[in-house]
Amino acid sequence: MKLNVGILGATGLTGAELVRLLLRHPQVEITWLSSESQAGTNYGQVYPAFSSRLPEEVAKLIPMEQAWKTAPDAVFSCLPHAASAEAIEPFLKNGKTKVVDLSADFRISDASIYGSTYGHKHPHPERLSEAVFGLSEIHRERIAKSKLIANPGCYSTSVLLPLIPLLRDGVIRKEGIIVDSKSGISGMGKKATEASHFVFRNENFAAYKVGDQHRHLPEIQEQLTIATGSAVAPLFTPHLVPMERGILSTIYADLAEGKTSADAEACWNKAYAGSAFVKVVQEFPATADVAHSNECRFKAYQPSGTTKLIIVSVLDNMVKGASGQALQNMNLMFGLGETLGLL
Amino acid sequence: MKLNVGILGATGLTGAELVRLLLRHPQVEITWLSSESQAGTNYGQVYPAFSSRLPEEVAKLIPMEQAWKTAPDAVFSCLPHAASAEAIEPFLKNGKTKVVDLSADFRISDASIYGSTYGHKHPHPERLSEAVFGLSEIHRERIAKSKLIANPGCYSTSVLLPLIPLLRDGVIRKEGIIVDSKSGISGMGKKATEASHFVFRNENFAAYKVGDQHRHLPEIQEQLTIATGSAVAPLFTPHLVPMERGILSTIYADLAEGKTSADAEACWNKAYAGSAFVKVVQEFPATADVAHSNECRFKAYQPSGTTKLIIVSVLDNMVKGASGQALQNMNLMFGLGETLGLL
Amino acid sequence: MKLNVGILGATGLTGAELVRLLLRHPQVEITWLSSESQAGTNYGQVYPAFSSRLPEEVAKLIPMEQAWKTAPDAVFSCLPHAASAEAIEPFLKNGKTKVVDLSADFRISDASIYGSTYGHKHPHPERLSEAVFGLSEIHRERIAKSKLIANPGCYSTSVLLPLIPLLRDGVIRKEGIIVDSKSGISGMGKKATEASHFVFRNENFAAYKVGDQHRHLPEIQEQLTIATGSAVAPLFTPHLVPMERGILSTIYADLAEGKTSADAEACWNKAYAGSAFVKVVQEFPATADVAHSNECRFKAYQPSGTTKLIIVSVLDNMVKGASGQALQNMNLMFGLGETLGLL
Amino acid sequence: MKLNVGILGATGLTGAELVRLLLRHPQVEITWLSSESQAGTNYGQVYPAFSSRLPEEVAKLIPMEQAWKTAPDAVFSCLPHAASAEAIEPFLKNGKTKVVDLSADFRISDASIYGSTYGHKHPHPERLSEAVFGLSEIHRERIAKSKLIANPGCYSTSVLLPLIPLLRDGVIRKEGIIVDSKSGISGMGKKATEASHFVFRNENFAAYKVGDQHRHLPEIQEQLTIATGSAVAPLFTPHLVPMERGILSTIYADLAEGKTSADAEACWNKAYAGSAFVKVVQEFPATADVAHSNECRFKAYQPSGTTKLIIVSVLDNMVKGASGQALQNMNLMFGLGETLGLL
Repeated sequence: MKLNVGILGATGLTGAELVRLLLRHPQVEITWLSSESQAGTNYGQVYPAFSSRLPEEVAKLIPMEQAWKTAPDAVFSCLPHAASAEAIEPFLKNGKTKVVDLSADFRISDASIYGSTYGHKHPHPERLSEAVFGLSEIHRERIAKSKLIANPGCYSTSVLLPLIPLLRDGVIRKEGIIVDSKSGISGMGKKATEASHFVFRNENFAAYKVGDQHRHLPEIQEQLTIATGSAVAPLFTPHLVPMERGILSTIYADLAEGKTSADAEACWNKAYAGSAFVKVVQEFPATADVAHSNECRFKAYQPSGTTKLIIVSVLDNMVKGASGQALQNMNLMFGLGETLGLL
Repeated sequence: MKLNVGILGATGLTGAELVRLLLRHPQVEITWLSSESQAGTNYGQVYPAFSSRLPEEVAKLIPMEQAWKTAPDAVFSCLPHAASAEAIEPFLKNGKTKVVDLSADFRISDASIYGSTYGHKHPHPERLSEAVFGLSEIHRERIAKSKLIANPGCYSTSVLLPLIPLLRDGVIRKEGIIVDSKSGISGMGKKATEASHFVFRNENFAAYKVGDQHRHLPEIQEQLTIATGSAVAPLFTPHLVPMERGILSTIYADLAEGKTSADAEACWNKAYAGSAFVKVVQEFPATADVAHSNECRFKAYQPSGTTKLIIVSVLDNMVKGASGQALQNMNLMFGLGETLGLL
Repeated sequence: MKLNVGILGATGLTGAELVRLLLRHPQVEITWLSSESQAGTNYGQVYPAFSSRLPEEVAKLIPMEQAWKTAPDAVFSCLPHAASAEAIEPFLKNGKTKVVDLSADFRISDASIYGSTYGHKHPHPERLSEAVFGLSEIHRERIAKSKLIANPGCYSTSVLLPLIPLLRDGVIRKEGIIVDSKSGISGMGKKATEASHFVFRNENFAAYKVGDQHRHLPEIQEQLTIATGSAVAPLFTPHLVPMERGILSTIYADLAEGKTSADAEACWNKAYAGSAFVKVVQEFPATADVAHSNECRFKAYQPSGTTKLIIVSVLDNMVKGASGQALQNMNLMFGLGETLGLL
Repeated sequence: MKLNVGILGATGLTGAELVRLLLRHPQVEITWLSSESQAGTNYGQVYPAFSSRLPEEVAKLIPMEQAWKTAPDAVFSCLPHAASAEAIEPFLKNGKTKVVDLSADFRISDASIYGSTYGHKHPHPERLSEAVFGLSEIHRERIAKSKLIANPGCYSTSVLLPLIPLLRDGVIRKEGIIVDSKSGISGMGKKATEASHFVFRNENFAAYKVGDQHRHLPEIQEQLTIATGSAVAPLFTPHLVPMERGILSTIYADLAEGKTSADAEACWNKAYAGSAFVKVVQEFPATADVAHSNECRFKAYQPSGTTKLIIVSVLDNMVKGASGQALQNMNLMFGLGETLGLL
């Protein structure tokens, strides 16, 4: 028996990545793909790569109204924030469907922080307490029991996986953490803007939302704060790299008294023993090492004569940073093998 | 005494390239830059590369109405077709200003072919007979005497420069010519569309407007037909290359009875002796060889045992394919050295 | 029971692509990877993407001498020409192992043409008659019965799949065919040369081995000649595109008397009914449509008022153009589903 | 009267960039280009872009022995470290020639630090005291009087220009500075290695020589230490961006007691008033803003509620980071306008 799966907002980049992954998953059957702006269109026209890879009735994009009349086993929402919380509500109410929300709507537990970050009132604050932050390796047990997963931001995943165990075990100090992240252009989403035009991104490297301005920072702060039990507020500067996919985060932290990079590595090895998708590596990883994979890899280095720890962390922003982790979360929610369809 | 120069539609990609070139030209002073959509904005905000490189009063984009009140020595129009013919009309009427039109409006002498190609009636068919097709090396004398230059299309320049002398001198046959062209993404212009999104162009190579569908074909046909005295109708297939700039055209032709590739080379050497920007080279040229330069380079090859001639021609679509040739034409119109500011 | 598989020359780009594909194949177990220059090294050090994805004893690269002592069910050779024919000979002699040779050694049936093309005497001309040209969809039955497959060149596959049925059925004329192909840089192989340096390929588009000089032309000619029963000698010009993977071939042919592009499409639909990896598409395909897939897609167009047929054909040079087709051929040789592990 | 100029090691990437710039300089005549490995070759064969742009006798590369017999007004050395100090020695001795050394040989005043950084004894430690560190805007007066300029490293220039005035004026603290730099691939030089292969750099972003391992760090430390009068030891992590040219450095520092980002901006405006190539900008700069220009641009930001200063600094590593600054230094040494040939 395969799981029936629907995708809300299937025409975006994370939607397409999900379709790609689901087509390889042995226990899943896609039942519908929805899109408001392109309802009625065949998915193969939107993404020629998928032409004739889906049954015709599935390939034909349906509007949300039609999707709401169904109750699949699982629904992934690739809609923008606010729209997403509205669109998944009928599924949360049908008593059957489990939801993985790839938008930011349920990542931050405090509706007022959500409001100031995203510039509008939360559409369903009453759902916030039900949602589990879908950082698979950290919240595995809670994810397995949840019906609503807030899939983490791409930057957040690359930062939280290395930092949470180190902070939890007191290997690094929580003050003074600096995160310098670099992302491929798919992180900008599919919308055509001058900023995403090939000519303006090619042969160009740029910083944006420097220091404290990026929307992923509040969810990073909340998760780090949960891990330590008191407020953690890193600086965070994202950058755009002229390539399609991949995130590399270079993280600078202070080692706690008496701790060394060896302690960091030991802490990680313990935390991620048995986690197939998290790899502590011996050479500094590059984004190409994890392209199209669901892995997050990292390595730490302590410059000689210092008490600083420098961490380099990589993942594919479209896979472990979005659709791959969403599928991993679906596997956990349905008691399937965590890596099913993802190796 | 420097020439006063204005640019209509200065915010497009060819406008920016013109500004770049004009800033290096020793006999030119930019007097205004116009833009309808961004009037009032500082040019440095549109293109940060130019911030503080222009006097403030020049950097502030003016609307067309304001531009029309001036009579600079030269005006370049980087506006889209139709809009361009309208916008330059007041300058053509002022009895002083010379105009280089980078749009397609005056490239085709027959208003009905223009109409079917561009999908609307020609706004000023009465001007068609005044305009000179600005293929600098071919129409040098007529350009020098003209007040209205139709700057050629980027593809057209890469195709016409090698083909015209060969057809004029009967080195190749006019039947059966096949042109397979490849262009960098700047050829798509600045408009943000899904097709110009980095994610959809990066790691992607595509054909478009295959065979007989591209708008540059009628101007290529007209110019080739003029050169031979009877109709020439090549096939033409353009492609998009994931890079910013550069065009490479691979051209397949039949040698005329008794002719060889050596005759082709001799014909070119004669035709382009003294033309600094046209180079017949000994190794097949690549687009990077002419990046940011006003050169067009080509080489011919005759596969052994055949009577076929294969020509590889390259240029920078933003320079010799657009703004550089426009400036070369301005130099010719004002009796300046043809290469001034372009080496 | 899984098939035991070894890879000769596993450290090249096609070797890495094969490992990637084989790790997903449900009926295959990699038993060894060989490399002369890097024997003893762990494969994860050569390609970090594979670190810890292979059992340690498999990941450790072995020299050929050691490989020769084994008799796996299947061996893939990713070695260069000449070295490949030598290296697979012991496997061909062991009475068990079936071989897919990704080099050019057995693609051309005439040893003297091989000699003049590759610049050295064929190491095992006596094997030439045993080898089957591994264009899967065309020689399916013969492949299934063979123990030695000559996997086709990447360009060849993109050209032969559309042309063979059209020539066989007399839809196009065999004279005057022109093939203008464009390839990503992975086609250059892994060797570090100035020509493959990022700085010299980025923002650069170039033709090479123009007209009649590329080594894939003899195998294209032989296969087309077999299809028609008399000599076919197209022109062939390859180009390098600044992207990692993908080939697009633009093919110009003359339609046979009375034939149209509709006949071409009908011919293809008949020839490739039931071939999952060959798709006749309705929009001109781009290389990104088939990236990382084993598909070859094409479409034909007849410019109005002409008897010309223009075909645009795309594939991923590392998959259908190399390792994917090699695996497809292995599936055929062992009676497995042709698409197993390739969807 | 033009200056006669020779280039040692002209075939490298910085050599080619110098030729490009010198061809536009109104007061310079290139008299020779030297290369050991390619002596006798025409420069146009090494870099087709320059074919027929140099007189034939200049284009023909000469060996060093031959160069040593001449005494040009200025010599630029683009040779690797150690080789460079040896090659310029005869020019330093001839009593006439002024030298700009683009290698690292004279950047560090302490021969023992040089030795441990570059892994060999300094070839001419007696010259170290004569050399002036060629950070044009900082050491303008000393450069003007010197005969031997040590042109700064590309990363160093992007870091030192913003940091020196801030440290000198006590706007930021000297402890805890973190420099996270990103460079285009031309920074790797021209040597063909697997690491510089297109396939391994394209769609890949990587850190290297993390924290305290890069050779530019000692020169950064020395210059910062000179500026403050006591030791400054930042962390420094460089990264490789899949693009040809450009460096962006993101710098994290602590503001001194009571200082704000407004003080930083004021400090810069004072320090760089009248410096045409240093621009304090209002929007965060991107590398494309300064591509092919000799500018270094930067902006500072103070995250709200913090005493941190984040600086984003950009330059073109081939121009202000190498050959452009070398030419600027030549202008200063000969009393020419600092910007001559560089706008």
